[in-house]
This record gives sequence, structure tokens and C-alpha cells, in this order.
Amino acid sequence: MSKNNDIYTRSLELHKKLQGKMSTETKVAIETYEDLALLYSPGVARASEEIFKDPENVYKYTSKSNTVAIISDGSAVLGLGNIGAKAALPVMEGKAALFKRFGNVNAVPIVLDTQDPDEIINICKNLAPGFGGINLEDISSPNCVYIETKLQDLVDIPVFHDDQHGTSIVTTAALINALRLVDKKPEDIKLVISGAGAAGFAIIKLIRELGVKNIYAFNSQGIINKDKKKADLVYQQIQKLTNLDNLDQSLEETIKDADVFIGVSVGGLVSSKMVKSMAKDSIVFAMANPTPEIDYDTAINAGARVVGTGRSDYPNQINNIIVFPGLFKGLLKVRAKRVVDQLKLHLAFAIADIVKDDLSEVNIIPKVFDERVVETIVKSIESEILKLRKEGLDV
Amino acid sequence: MSKNNDIYTRSLELHKKLQGKMSTETKVAIETYEDLALLYSPGVARASEEIFKDPENVYKYTSKSNTVAIISDGSAVLGLGNIGAKAALPVMEGKAALFKRFGNVNAVPIVLDTQDPDEIINICKNLAPGFGGINLEDISSPNCVYIETKLQDLVDIPVFHDDQHGTSIVTTAALINALRLVDKKPEDIKLVISGAGAAGFAIIKLIRELGVKNIYAFNSQGIINKDKKKADLVYQQIQKLTNLDNLDQSLEETIKDADVFIGVSVGGLVSSKMVKSMAKDSIVFAMANPTPEIDYDTAINAGARVVGTGRSDYPNQINNIIVFPGLFKGLLKVRAKRVVDQLKLHLAFAIADIVKDDLSEVNIIPKVFDERVVETIVKSIESEILKLRKEGLDV
Repeated sequence: MSKNNDIYTRSLELHKKLQGKMSTETKVAIETYEDLALLYSPGVARASEEIFKDPENVYKYTSKSNTVAIISDGSAVLGLGNIGAKAALPVMEGKAALFKRFGNVNAVPIVLDTQDPDEIINICKNLAPGFGGINLEDISSPNCVYIETKLQDLVDIPVFHDDQHGTSIVTTAALINALRLVDKKPEDIKLVISGAGAAGFAIIKLIRELGVKNIYAFNSQGIINKDKKKADLVYQQIQKLTNLDNLDQSLEETIKDADVFIGVSVGGLVSSKMVKSMAKDSIVFAMANPTPEIDYDTAINAGARVVGTGRSDYPNQINNIIVFPGLFKGLLKVRAKRVVDQLKLHLAFAIADIVKDDLSEVNIIPKVFDERVVETIVKSIESEILKLRKEGLDV
Repeated sequence: MSKNNDIYTRSLELHKKLQGKMSTETKVAIETYEDLALLYSPGVARASEEIFKDPENVYKYTSKSNTVAIISDGSAVLGLGNIGAKAALPVMEGKAALFKRFGNVNAVPIVLDTQDPDEIINICKNLAPGFGGINLEDISSPNCVYIETKLQDLVDIPVFHDDQHGTSIVTTAALINALRLVDKKPEDIKLVISGAGAAGFAIIKLIRELGVKNIYAFNSQGIINKDKKKADLVYQQIQKLTNLDNLDQSLEETIKDADVFIGVSVGGLVSSKMVKSMAKDSIVFAMANPTPEIDYDTAINAGARVVGTGRSDYPNQINNIIVFPGLFKGLLKVRAKRVVDQLKLHLAFAIADIVKDDLSEVNIIPKVFDERVVETIVKSIESEILKLRKEGLDV
């Protein structure tokens, strides 16, 4: 804890010193009247005229070509919950910093003074002309699913809720390699997932695309089965996709003989005894942050063969930082209109393949600072989107 | 024309090369896991918690302290008219570049896919938590007046429509010095203004604060008097504030014996003969861009004593570039909540006073690159806002 306290204290000091982690910068110097005439009035009128004649020219002459909006309503920020727009801003600025550092993508943090999903959709739709993509961030479930789906239908730029799909892509990439390592097939495994919010839902959908059939999902009220009633559209979808034999039993009972446990829920949920009860060559992804569902070392000592967490101080950090910068860099490069499901699974395999040749129990996923990651994702998006377009998809 | 054509061609080439004139940049390097932990998760949670506890802390720990949104619906862009959101983007990026270059203020260009005033108000209100100020830009009249007024009532950050008030402040500053030079009092002059849109309306209001009483305003349909009916709220306001003797006559007839002509309308409107008919020591501000209502040289040769235009290649460039960067820098520094009328006139005097000691027919207003301007405006805002707050105003 003292180490973490230290990080928190120093982080606050850094935030105070910086008063904002991002700045907007002009790409060229403005020192003469001619500079002014070229960058602003009257010269700028020519670029405006070209865009007025053909709106596609906006990519040719403006920052729309390389800028995304990071949009949050502050309703589900980190582990802090519904802290609102202003308190969400430091997180969105941090995200913008990562976009720039890892993807060389310009990103603008935008925090909204509303949590009404239809209002959020309308605002994003109206902001779209100036941005090449929209990264939805830290919006609570199920609103985030509704907003993403409906908004994508209204705009011709990609909309991506990172908490869902960034997490699902990186988790699926890690699962692909872990299963390769233990030589099990997705079709054959029993998988238990704790956390049935936006991230859990997206993971369930993507690992089903991978071929996993036998999935049991838990939320804070226990196992999800078809007998429970809830007005939450995400919950209802998960009811359809999991627990095919409609069991009603505890996490402890269900994790027995499971091949894989995935946690996107709360720290300390999984005991050593529970991991011991899992099948041979078990895989444990305990991704709650900053405290995992079970510690890396505890899980290893309990017999798990492959363990991943969200933490950088243990092997196999499963973190969506390796996804979104390259993802948007690639989407912007090909001017993608949307992120289709095929692309997500394709990317999971591409990311998994980066470490394929060095695969081991402590190396199932590339590291955050691995320079091959962004490059691989961009190339992968280029080839896949071009392929899908050839097949006639409007992507 | 060939010189201008050259500027336009080279400007388009520059826009193509840059693909966006602005970038977002991270203020510190991210090279280690510790950097990540400090700037992003988990460290960033501390700043979020501090802001959640006290929303005012958002100024202490985020870029809200030094970032403005430049918002346009693309309905009245430069001289190009209603060209829409995408075509407006190069202009807003140019404006953002000027904010940074002259005021060291971060600025984010935001172009909206709607021209509905109430929708624009609602969007801006919801964007407000992340910005320290809102610069409305190139929104057509009378919507711009309605939007600015109503929006300011909904948010606790300053809202400033630059086409109105930037123009009115710099024009009033120039008028203050021109009147000093010819030794006439605002109360005694006859003033004719051509252009009764947002800029004209704002100029009329501010020069009335200065003391000018005898004002005649023209739009493309001729003189504005009380007999004409129009459903435009700006027009109706100008009817109340000008043409007190309710004349119905031409610009040519009205400009006769006038002490001052101000043009914010269309190029070439004013003839040499008309300037010749003006009073002794006449003042002509022909600010239509890029072609003034009358050329600088033509107006001088026709006997005008002080001539200003919007152009940088003649003396007395009356351009709001000298206002908005310092204005927002100052407003952000004191965390102003709004821009009150008293402040505008105060700033006009402060700007005029910069060149008071070197006042001449060719030096009535500071130049764009004069480094004293921003500093003077910031100090002036600080002292005036503190004074107004002491008087009990919520500014």
C-alpha cells in the first residue's frame, strides 16, 4: 500500500504542476503577416471552398484525418463509479496522452454535463464533422451499449466504446495464446466469467466468436441464468449467451473443473481453494484493477498454469492500452466508417501472433511498450478492411 | 489579384501538407510503467477524487484552466456564407492556432452538424465542464446573439462571440484614438455604419457606451429606421438604438457631413465622392475583408484624415486578432464567469492607450505582432474583474 500511496500522492502533485496533461499546439510558426495570410484569413478560404465543393476533402485539408474525440459522461470512471463530468476529466486527459504517445493520434477529451443516453447520442452526432472517430469512455452499462449502437447508425466515422471492445480484444488475444499453450480448443473448454457489465458482455460476445460455447457469467447477485428477471438489456443478452444448462449455483460450485476464469469485477473475489478446484492446466485472468480477483502469486501457487492480471508489475498484463491507439490509428488511416465484429476477432489473433514465437506461461500477450503492437494492428486493420470492402461491406 | 491568388494557392498547398494545423501534445514523456501509473491508472484516480470532493479543483488539476472551445455551426464563415460544419473546420483550426500563438491558450475547434440555435445552446452547455471558456465563431445573425445570451445564462464560464465583441472592442479602440487625434468628442459626432449584422450591432452598442449618440445604420436594403418591419431581433434592436430622427434616405445622402464612417459590410460600397462629402477631419474604417468598402489610398486621397481597414498591408489594421487571445488568457487567469459590458469598454480604452504616446494618422491601433497587447489586456481584465467583484458583481 505504501508504494501505491506514494504513486497517488506523486500523481496528484504532477497533476497540480501540469494543470492539464495535454496542450494544443500549432504545427507551424506564425511570425509574419504572410504566415497569418496562409494559415488564416484570407488564404484559409481556399481550403474551406474545396471542402464545401466536396465534403470528403475535409480529410485532405484538416485535422479530422488524425483526431478522435474521447467522450465520457463520467458515469463509470475507473473504480470510482459515477463521479460526473469534471472529475472524469483527468482520466480522459490521460487517455488522450496515451493516444498520442502510442498511436500518434490527436485526441480531445470531452466530458459531458448530461447522462441522458439520447442526449449524449445527439451531442456526439453533432460533434462528428470535426473528428475522424469517437472513443466512448467510462459510460455506465447498459447505456454505453445503447449509445454506441445507436450513434454508430447516425455517423459515418467509427464509434468505439473502449471499455467494452478494447478489453474484449486484448482478453481474447490473451485467451488465444493461453489456449495454444495448454493445447485446448475453445470449443472444448468450460469458462467462468465474473463481471457482467459492459466489459464482461463484450468479452462473452468475442470469445463466442472465437468458438467458446460453455460460458457461465456472474455478477454481484450471483450466477446469471434464465430464471432471473432484470430490465437491463446487457443482462438480458448475457442470459441468452451463457449458462446453456440454466444452472443456479454459486461461483465456488461453478468454477470447479473450469478451464478458464476471467474476472472483470472486484478484487479478492477468488480464493486459492477455488483455483485448486479448477481443471488441469487452468487459466486465470484476474483483471480487476488495481486489486485483482486473486493475486498472481496466489493463483500460481494454487496450481493455475497461466495467470494474467491488469497489473504491470506481474507477467501477462492484460490491458487495453495495447489496443486503442493502434486501432484508431489504423481506422483513421483507412478512413473506416465503423468497427465490425469480424475486425475485432481478426485483431485479437493479430495481437496474439506477435508473441507466438516466444510463447510461454509468462508471455502470452505483448507488453504495453512493445513497439511491434501498433504497427501490427494498423497493418491488420488495413488488410482486413480492404478485404471486407472487396466483399462489398460498407466499412 | 495575382498576389492574392498566390496566397490562396500556397495556402491550399500548406493545408494539404499539414492535414490539420493543430495537434494535441502530451506535456510529459511516457517511457516507463511508472510514467503510466502517474499520468493514468491508478494514480490519476487521486486527481479525480479531489475534483469529485470539490468541483472547483478541476481548475487546479486539469486543462480546463487553460483551454477554450471554438464552436461554429458553419453558417456564416468569413465571406463565404453558410458553408456548413466541415468546410468551416479549416477556419476554426486557424483560429485555434492564433489562440495558441498570441495567447498561449489551448483551443479546440468544434464544428457542429446542426444550425438549430436551441440545439447549439444545449450542446455547448453540455460541453462546458471540460472547457474554461467558449468562443462562438462564424454563426449567422441573429442566431448568434440569441445563442450567446441564452447560453451565458446556463454556464459558469465566459461565452464570447468573437465576430460581435472582438470586432466591437477593436473598432471602439481605434475610434477612441482617431477621435483623440482629430480632437472631437463622441457625444458630438455623426457616425454612419454600414453592416447591420452581428458585428454592426455589437459595434453600435459599444460606441454608444463610449458616448456616441448620433448613429445611422445601413444594411443591404438601405437605412434602418423605425418604419421598416423585420422579424429579426438584431434588426429590431438596431432600430431602437440608431436614426433617432427617423430619416429615410440613401447612404450617399446620409454620409454627407458625417464625422465617422464604419464599414463591416461589402467591398467597394463607398465612393471617393462620398468621402469628399464628409465633415472635416473625417474618419473612415472600411473593414470589409479582403476588399474594403473603400481602398485606403482612395479614402486618403478623397480627404479622409484617418483611415483604417482590415488589411495588414495598409496602416491601421483593425483586426480582432489583437483582442481574443489576450481576452481569453485574462478571463481564464481570473476564472471569469462572464464578459460584462463594462469590461468591453474598459478593454477598448486599454488597447487604445497602448499607442497613445505615438498616436498619429497611421498609428491609431496596435499591430497584430505588438507584444504589449496581450499583456495589457490580461492586466486590464485582472484589475477590472477584481474591481467589479469588489462591487459585488458575480463576474
